[in-house]
Amino acid sequence: MSDKKAKKTKIIEPRVLKGFRDSLPAQEIPKRKIINKLETLFSTHGFVPIDTPALEYTEVLLGKGGGETDKQIFSFQDNGKREVALRFDLTVPFARFLAAHYNEVALPFKRYHINKVWRGEKPQKGRFREFYQCDFDIVGADNAEADFEILSMMNTSFSKLGIQNYTFCVAHRGLFNAFLKHLDVIDESGEILRCVDKLRKIGEEEVKKQLVDITGSSEKADSILSYITKIDGESFLETVERLSALAGNEIEHSQRIKDIYSYLLASGIESHFTFDPSITRGLDYYTGIVYETFLDDLPSFGSVCSGGRYNNLASLYTKQELPGVGSSIGLDRLLSALEELDNNVIGTSSSSDVVVFNEDAKTYAYGNKIAAALREQGLRVDHYLIKKKLNQQFKYAETNQIPFGIIIRENDEENNTFTLKNLNTRNNEDNLKVEDAVKLIKQGI
Amino acid sequence: MSDKKAKKTKIIEPRVLKGFRDSLPAQEIPKRKIINKLETLFSTHGFVPIDTPALEYTEVLLGKGGGETDKQIFSFQDNGKREVALRFDLTVPFARFLAAHYNEVALPFKRYHINKVWRGEKPQKGRFREFYQCDFDIVGADNAEADFEILSMMNTSFSKLGIQNYTFCVAHRGLFNAFLKHLDVIDESGEILRCVDKLRKIGEEEVKKQLVDITGSSEKADSILSYITKIDGESFLETVERLSALAGNEIEHSQRIKDIYSYLLASGIESHFTFDPSITRGLDYYTGIVYETFLDDLPSFGSVCSGGRYNNLASLYTKQELPGVGSSIGLDRLLSALEELDNNVIGTSSSSDVVVFNEDAKTYAYGNKIAAALREQGLRVDHYLIKKKLNQQFKYAETNQIPFGIIIRENDEENNTFTLKNLNTRNNEDNLKVEDAVKLIKQGI
Repeated sequence: MSDKKAKKTKIIEPRVLKGFRDSLPAQEIPKRKIINKLETLFSTHGFVPIDTPALEYTEVLLGKGGGETDKQIFSFQDNGKREVALRFDLTVPFARFLAAHYNEVALPFKRYHINKVWRGEKPQKGRFREFYQCDFDIVGADNAEADFEILSMMNTSFSKLGIQNYTFCVAHRGLFNAFLKHLDVIDESGEILRCVDKLRKIGEEEVKKQLVDITGSSEKADSILSYITKIDGESFLETVERLSALAGNEIEHSQRIKDIYSYLLASGIESHFTFDPSITRGLDYYTGIVYETFLDDLPSFGSVCSGGRYNNLASLYTKQELPGVGSSIGLDRLLSALEELDNNVIGTSSSSDVVVFNEDAKTYAYGNKIAAALREQGLRVDHYLIKKKLNQQFKYAETNQIPFGIIIRENDEENNTFTLKNLNTRNNEDNLKVEDAVKLIKQGI
Repeated sequence: MSDKKAKKTKIIEPRVLKGFRDSLPAQEIPKRKIINKLETLFSTHGFVPIDTPALEYTEVLLGKGGGETDKQIFSFQDNGKREVALRFDLTVPFARFLAAHYNEVALPFKRYHINKVWRGEKPQKGRFREFYQCDFDIVGADNAEADFEILSMMNTSFSKLGIQNYTFCVAHRGLFNAFLKHLDVIDESGEILRCVDKLRKIGEEEVKKQLVDITGSSEKADSILSYITKIDGESFLETVERLSALAGNEIEHSQRIKDIYSYLLASGIESHFTFDPSITRGLDYYTGIVYETFLDDLPSFGSVCSGGRYNNLASLYTKQELPGVGSSIGLDRLLSALEELDNNVIGTSSSSDVVVFNEDAKTYAYGNKIAAALREQGLRVDHYLIKKKLNQQFKYAETNQIPFGIIIRENDEENNTFTLKNLNTRNNEDNLKVEDAVKLIKQGI
């Protein structure tokens, strides 16, 4: 369209779809910080990044789907009449990826994947249709070492993100299934675990009622309730021993849990872990340990990181057996939580450490030189682009949460100096050299 | 579905849609490196990150669209019967973002946006339907300083990515329009610039033929051809003076170009810039400088970074005037180019600097401690998870391009030592402490 037509075009309302949102710098700066921290963490621990298409064949994505997934997936017909959908999580695409690239990766394969997923669920407070997930998994090792390494990565992640108080609630689906078998209700295991998974949401009484319906026995319902009830004061290993007895002196799974726990002890991080038999995770594919993560200071916030061991995940796409264990952090939800907690790692959304003000076209090139020199010293430096009154430039710094400004005065260029202004205290330091300014800015003085 | 049903399910072929692809670690590791380098660069230069939804109302995205965009956009009807589409570029969503959040940002607004876009174009070698773009723009400053800052960021980006030989070809659409007006063919400007834009593709003869058709005059076609032809040996400023004369001694735009050039000179980066009047960029919305970037060592590769000044981009969504200037790097294409150039910044796709081997469950916890200590020293450390023969563990290291391995021998734990193996030379250093190993690994010995 030509300029003439453009002027006649009626204004289009700049709206976004329901459940979608723009990410402004105030949200995006801390989000990038978290993502960069996690990326550094994974890549220093032998985990490698992958990515998969946002859009896939609906049939491929829904392979494992139950009714819930079907309803929530964003699916369409493309111009070639193909049924396609946006990925719903990063787990199913990973299973498909493994089946497709089995011969191109070395096992055990440790991968992380941080990217967007889409869900058609009804938008509500804190729940959006587009959000970031951060998944990390180890495939090709069905042992306590792999289980431990995922738990340890979870702990390192939370610790490096500057979160103080968090609890990893661990349980074991193999042990739970052994118990259900011992109780002779294993055929109802799917219904039972989905019912138990709702304990925190619907309460014990309602769970009991549903369990009676499912098992047809008040006694069995009581047994299940007793199994899933955490006893205050009981230690991690005491709980495992008690549950193992309830499961008919089950050995294999309880030994695995004990081995994992011995590694947690050896690395001194055991205090963050508790065995909580009410954790079952609704999804069918888990076969070993499962876990959810709660922030002690935001108990009503729900789990911010969860996962478990799945030994048959890729079986829809390949006959190759690929045992895996992994975890998923809901990044956008974690970010909201960190904001509520005034977390010091995400800190402010300050765009820069210092801004070079601009009062005179003649000194603009000199301002560029100062900016470049400060950047060489590791500072984040903005340069204001328009010759405006200083007060208006101060306002720009304020909106962008920039704590320092640089003013160039007469003779500064020939002396290779400048004035540093602390924009909080409004204090000026005149005739500074770059190295002096760097010290003051880094000290926040 | 229950486990029983899962076993009966027939295998689903793990295929992806035509034009889409998985990103394996060998591709994703260098891509993350480039993205992280660019993010660091932007955030140290006062640019802030934003994000917008992948999916938007088709009507909003196609607002500015010509026929080409309409054909290539991935559009669907969602379950609520809304016409929706995947974003085609990061420019249109940015214009919509600006109109929506005008009051929430401080001008001049410097933003970067690195994320995926989708196009339905026919897949061909090196062209995919899903790819990453990296856009950076300055909105709210229509002056030489803003134009210069974008050009300077382009130069810093290429230089920090370790690219040696590159040329930014700059032209000016305002000057070109002044010339077309002087030639009395301004009403055909749209057709003319799209024709001229194809010069590299279809050659001078065909361009001439089309220009005669458009202008109805062989003389005018020759004038235009003469304007867009770069003269060997002519300097940047000489070209600008000559074109300004051809445009009837045009002053305003040529002065802007001279001011920009003076800043390029002052910062000592002018040698990477050439004034090339054949650069017009096909899109209608450009109003000032425009540019494309070519890699001198891969001349046939086409432009890897392009953009320009647009003073009315957001006018579809708001009456607010928002002059902008920006640039866009095609990240996936740049990555292919860097691979062809054996670029040393992306380097190898090595997953880790060193891997701790695992021969004995008894020393697994000790291995964890060594790994943690090495990570404290800034190394990327993997820990092999399965007790297997060392030869098989060496193979794992080789696939992941890990140059060093750590072997734990008898008595190592009590002495707090280990053996470091250089996996290229197969040389062993026994009884090492962490600090000795760090030195050897960092030196690559």
